[in-house]
Amino acid sequence: MRIAMLSLHTSPMQQPGSGDAGGMNVYIQNLSFALGALGHEVHMITRTAAESQSLQVGEGVWMHEVQVAANQSLSKEQLPEIIGPAVLAVSAHLQGLKFDIIHAHYWLSGMAGLELAELWSVPLLVSMHTSASAKEHESGIPEPGNRKQAEKQLLLECARIIANTPVEAKQLARFYQVESTKLDVVLPGVNHRIFHPDQDKLRRPLGEDDLHLVYAGRMQPLKGAHLLLNAMGAARRSHPDLRITASLFGASSGSADYDLKSMANEQNLGDVVRFYDPLEPTKLALVFANADIVAVPSLSETFGLVAAEAQACGTPVLANAVGGLAYAVNDGKSGWLMPEADASLWAQKLVELAQNPDAVTTAGHGALEHSGLFTWERAAVATLASYRIAQSEVQS
Amino acid sequence: MRIAMLSLHTSPMQQPGSGDAGGMNVYIQNLSFALGALGHEVHMITRTAAESQSLQVGEGVWMHEVQVAANQSLSKEQLPEIIGPAVLAVSAHLQGLKFDIIHAHYWLSGMAGLELAELWSVPLLVSMHTSASAKEHESGIPEPGNRKQAEKQLLLECARIIANTPVEAKQLARFYQVESTKLDVVLPGVNHRIFHPDQDKLRRPLGEDDLHLVYAGRMQPLKGAHLLLNAMGAARRSHPDLRITASLFGASSGSADYDLKSMANEQNLGDVVRFYDPLEPTKLALVFANADIVAVPSLSETFGLVAAEAQACGTPVLANAVGGLAYAVNDGKSGWLMPEADASLWAQKLVELAQNPDAVTTAGHGALEHSGLFTWERAAVATLASYRIAQSEVQS
Repeated sequence: MRIAMLSLHTSPMQQPGSGDAGGMNVYIQNLSFALGALGHEVHMITRTAAESQSLQVGEGVWMHEVQVAANQSLSKEQLPEIIGPAVLAVSAHLQGLKFDIIHAHYWLSGMAGLELAELWSVPLLVSMHTSASAKEHESGIPEPGNRKQAEKQLLLECARIIANTPVEAKQLARFYQVESTKLDVVLPGVNHRIFHPDQDKLRRPLGEDDLHLVYAGRMQPLKGAHLLLNAMGAARRSHPDLRITASLFGASSGSADYDLKSMANEQNLGDVVRFYDPLEPTKLALVFANADIVAVPSLSETFGLVAAEAQACGTPVLANAVGGLAYAVNDGKSGWLMPEADASLWAQKLVELAQNPDAVTTAGHGALEHSGLFTWERAAVATLASYRIAQSEVQS
Repeated sequence: MRIAMLSLHTSPMQQPGSGDAGGMNVYIQNLSFALGALGHEVHMITRTAAESQSLQVGEGVWMHEVQVAANQSLSKEQLPEIIGPAVLAVSAHLQGLKFDIIHAHYWLSGMAGLELAELWSVPLLVSMHTSASAKEHESGIPEPGNRKQAEKQLLLECARIIANTPVEAKQLARFYQVESTKLDVVLPGVNHRIFHPDQDKLRRPLGEDDLHLVYAGRMQPLKGAHLLLNAMGAARRSHPDLRITASLFGASSGSADYDLKSMANEQNLGDVVRFYDPLEPTKLALVFANADIVAVPSLSETFGLVAAEAQACGTPVLANAVGGLAYAVNDGKSGWLMPEADASLWAQKLVELAQNPDAVTTAGHGALEHSGLFTWERAAVATLASYRIAQSEVQS
């Protein structure tokens, strides 16, 4: 199959962490390379303010940077204005290439995809990654009405939709009245070449301990780091003989209302908790592999990629049984899912695990094995199944 | 990790179908390449009668052909005699390489592996693939006692065992009294670059039909092709208006007692059934992709690789709910599992499917998606988890 992989607002080849590049870039890049490795031809298409250029970047994978709005640095808010010019520029730049399907990522590419699908007479498949209504629902902050309206039109008119998790699929069905027969779920993969257990040994940053926890994520209430600190405080009060330590990696929210360092001091954890800046993937993998447990105390999570990455390093995960984490963690085998986001429940589990190092080691092996499910090849094969349904529906 | 992948009795790089080369070669080769792609160093080791040579055959993967019993062509029965010389030759040829684990395939390599594990002080992990007691149990034909005894010693003394399916694990536990905590199950993968739905269109070999079935496998009672023919006969008698056709690929057993062509004629299926010789994988993929359904009527099956390969071509599978097939097929989603190997049950299902082409198409997409689970990367990650348990047990 020849696939047009549309990612106008950010280049899939950009490193995450810089500018608007994040998890979606990782997703599109890995998916494209996995499709290429299966013998398909993938053309990633993005917008550039510089000269247009096309490069082969891997086996069967091309990157087309197409000049739209030359020499202009556009904000995210200005991008909707260039959808029309982008459609013209992309179709001119790729003239002569006949595609079998368009796979558009994020609503902006989706809108351009609708026009290209008509121009090229091919089905359009959309991965939203995030949607305005779901964001609004989770944060309580209203999103622009025109974006919500555009998303609704897009989801109605496209041939098919891939959600990253069952949770995302339910949200799209609920907030945009998408028929469930139009939705497929393809769980993302993990790059097992970066996240693996064969890492150098680190000295424990907090000295000898019974259990060393790692947390990695933004420092905001929804991610639940406060739950972890409260649980550690309670565990220490009930079992002062056990030394449970934690390293927390992530950017501080900067909000005075959510001051984790003060919380740690209030819980009398100053000597067993350290705070660090976010880490790049290769270093994070090193930290994960050297932890006893990676804690993912999120109160809500569409998938929980951190949980999958930690397990790929052979480290079990302690998390709440919410959202996608119920799929990311195999309860009792590759980690533990707490039925409630409750600090005393968490404290009890921390004590139990600190007293049972063998159970933690066994779960580490289970974690590595479970992470084998999260491969990009599996994701690519499942994505191909979705492409094919889209094609057969257009034909019939 | 640096892994010694021991396959003395047949070279993993040999094409299956020639000599003793079969599914096990495919397994070892694909697993080694997947481990290499994950950043590990894999040394496949086999015996040659010619000069020793070492070649890098892929990313992180080496093939060592080590001369043992020079210029002698040995039968399978003579191979046990060269275990001792093979250990000496292998350790001399690989001098200087320090391995983290030995993974031996088939009992002959296992026996050599026991000695090499002691020589190198590394844990030995064994994949049996087939065992004498299980073969004996299934065929009713006694296997040599010395092989059974050697296998028992091997399974007792090795650090850990990988079974290909839960069925194989149960057999090893039952026939050799292996403790279940020593056994891991790693389902095999499918080469999705060969088995994929994007194949040329073939003209239907039997003309217009309502349902075209394909069977691929040896023509012997355990594989159940007679069940398929009986079911087709019954379906034709109850619904003479429906045209259900079948192409059967496989070597005839040559036994007068199991004459499928006569059975087809007795069932009045001469015009709707064709018999062919076995096909090589790329051609088989073409045939699978063009079938409506691949029938796997086996009465017993450890995994049922054919079912996984068919699904990877986007074709649903009709099979009995026996052995590994219950894992290979997702009942109702990627195909259908019959609760009993009963011709009238099968006939009823064939009629239902011939009358419901949409259900067959939908299951085809489900089949492709389900086959995404069977990747060699997943198998490699799960195998690594097993290596790590073996290592941690030796250390502790």
